[in-house]
Amino acid sequence: MVRILHIGLGPLGRRVLADFVARRMGTVAAAVDLAPDIAGRSVEAVVPGAGGAVVARDIEELGDLAAIDCALVTTSSGLEACADTFRALLARGVDVVSSCEELSYPWLRHRVLAQELHERAVRGGARIVGTGVNPGFVMDTLPVFLSGVCNEVRRIDVWRIQDASTRRIPFQRKIGAGLDPTAFAAAAAEGTLRHVGLGESLHLVANALGFQLDAWDEQLEPVLADRELECGLGRIARGHAAGVRQVAEGRADGACVVRLVFQAAIGQPEPHDRVRIDGDPPLDVVLKNGVHGDIATSAVLLNTIAALRAAAPGLHTTVTLRPAHSRAGSSGS
Amino acid sequence: MVRILHIGLGPLGRRVLADFVARRMGTVAAAVDLAPDIAGRSVEAVVPGAGGAVVARDIEELGDLAAIDCALVTTSSGLEACADTFRALLARGVDVVSSCEELSYPWLRHRVLAQELHERAVRGGARIVGTGVNPGFVMDTLPVFLSGVCNEVRRIDVWRIQDASTRRIPFQRKIGAGLDPTAFAAAAAEGTLRHVGLGESLHLVANALGFQLDAWDEQLEPVLADRELECGLGRIARGHAAGVRQVAEGRADGACVVRLVFQAAIGQPEPHDRVRIDGDPPLDVVLKNGVHGDIATSAVLLNTIAALRAAAPGLHTTVTLRPAHSRAGSSGS
Repeated sequence: MVRILHIGLGPLGRRVLADFVARRMGTVAAAVDLAPDIAGRSVEAVVPGAGGAVVARDIEELGDLAAIDCALVTTSSGLEACADTFRALLARGVDVVSSCEELSYPWLRHRVLAQELHERAVRGGARIVGTGVNPGFVMDTLPVFLSGVCNEVRRIDVWRIQDASTRRIPFQRKIGAGLDPTAFAAAAAEGTLRHVGLGESLHLVANALGFQLDAWDEQLEPVLADRELECGLGRIARGHAAGVRQVAEGRADGACVVRLVFQAAIGQPEPHDRVRIDGDPPLDVVLKNGVHGDIATSAVLLNTIAALRAAAPGLHTTVTLRPAHSRAGSSGS
Repeated sequence: MVRILHIGLGPLGRRVLADFVARRMGTVAAAVDLAPDIAGRSVEAVVPGAGGAVVARDIEELGDLAAIDCALVTTSSGLEACADTFRALLARGVDVVSSCEELSYPWLRHRVLAQELHERAVRGGARIVGTGVNPGFVMDTLPVFLSGVCNEVRRIDVWRIQDASTRRIPFQRKIGAGLDPTAFAAAAAEGTLRHVGLGESLHLVANALGFQLDAWDEQLEPVLADRELECGLGRIARGHAAGVRQVAEGRADGACVVRLVFQAAIGQPEPHDRVRIDGDPPLDVVLKNGVHGDIATSAVLLNTIAALRAAAPGLHTTVTLRPAHSRAGSSGS
């Protein structure tokens, strides 16, 4: 049984807490959320079964955190937005599992902050890691794990091809479903359509496998509807965007060594995840229908608690921890 | 760069050493083998490029082992046969990666010895793990790793379906290729046909996932040739054994929760490895053509060195270590 502090009770945070309760993993000892309609209420009112802790506005409002085994932080994709929360938790010696996408490989965009967090974690005797289904599993940890059977890896390709028809409306909006090509291009330029974390996944893989990247880039384009489609946002005209396709490539000595293709679109046929390793031996691994994003992100966060607690203090990635596997009954030990 | 001691220069040991040399992972500081045609010669004479260390008959013949980073032990499938070697290495503080199948989950058949090895490892400040492609990857570590995206796992099925046509003759002999049903039954009764490690894989999975098995068994039967076949051992008559099929099942509360199917036969169509998880979410993962056994076992052993050295002292399994992944250039750090 594990005692957690949960920070961030948005849609993902509520899902994680609900799964934590359903899995009978332990106790919600404290919770934090800024939203005026949540702060001050009991966690029970937000997630039935989560117990009577009152949602604080700020970590500083909480009392002694010595009894907390782990903090779950599901607030923001950006590392800078989460940094003060992480600093406060690490200073108090609290382990942190976060869905913050940039934390999955923080050295890519925040090298100095990553070093600072690592030093704070070591000083506080605490551990911190960023994870989820993607980044955190399908396009980074999984290919690194699979490379374990290879004597040599020349190149890794990963595809995550999703049918967004059955996903939540915010997800359908995030991939630009229904936008005409001009509106899609404008939204893409604003950066609102981007799946956050593809660059982090790319660099986690390259770093683990010892590829010295001398260049990398990320391309984004619409997946255009080849017929009229329906989705939670309404009708999508033929020729308008059904979704998004993002491709990240890393090159070493001029050759592509890691290539990640993320595609999510309404009506996408044959959704799947796939890892192909050009190596010795070669590997071609297909996850039929792919891994469901909403369920799996919550599962990965919860399964990571025990793996993180078994690790040495410091800033971790998913590949410096033992596998974050499922466990029947309580999963916190 | 890593300095290794290699114990056991049979076919697998030579393959591992040759890969260690080809990958430029480090130095072969010492080697041990009992065979009269090997002991006393230089390692170079056994594996070109492996350097001038003289192959000792026994660990006790070796001098100070303080400079050794890791021992690779590829001598026997049975834990008792390896126990004195492991004791001697752990007493001298040397980390051990071994292909000993029973070491992959030693609590199954040697609970007392497992506890003894763990205590010796902790006392010596050393680490020890048993691994390979199977046991060690396909039928245990991989399904446990994949469960990381699941909130709940109700049952796991794993298939390893191999075409033995392209494998070494000793492997073809081991699976009973060419035997008539009576001879196959006799060899099976003697225990010489068995793939060693299926029970270990089953229990590693069950233990990691928190299944309390109240019963388990392992069945072995021939795969009969449905037409005349050719293999390295000669012609196989229709109706004779083309190979072996082993099925291990673990049950909890009367229901099968883990089922492993290992099948290796001459002329086997559509070879593949597959993991199917009945869980939340469900998963169905196929490794097309499967993972090549001979190459991958060597790769897994070598890739495990760095993962083991990063762990705390003690007796480990593959799922208490960080992923044993491939790494370009030197892989020992």
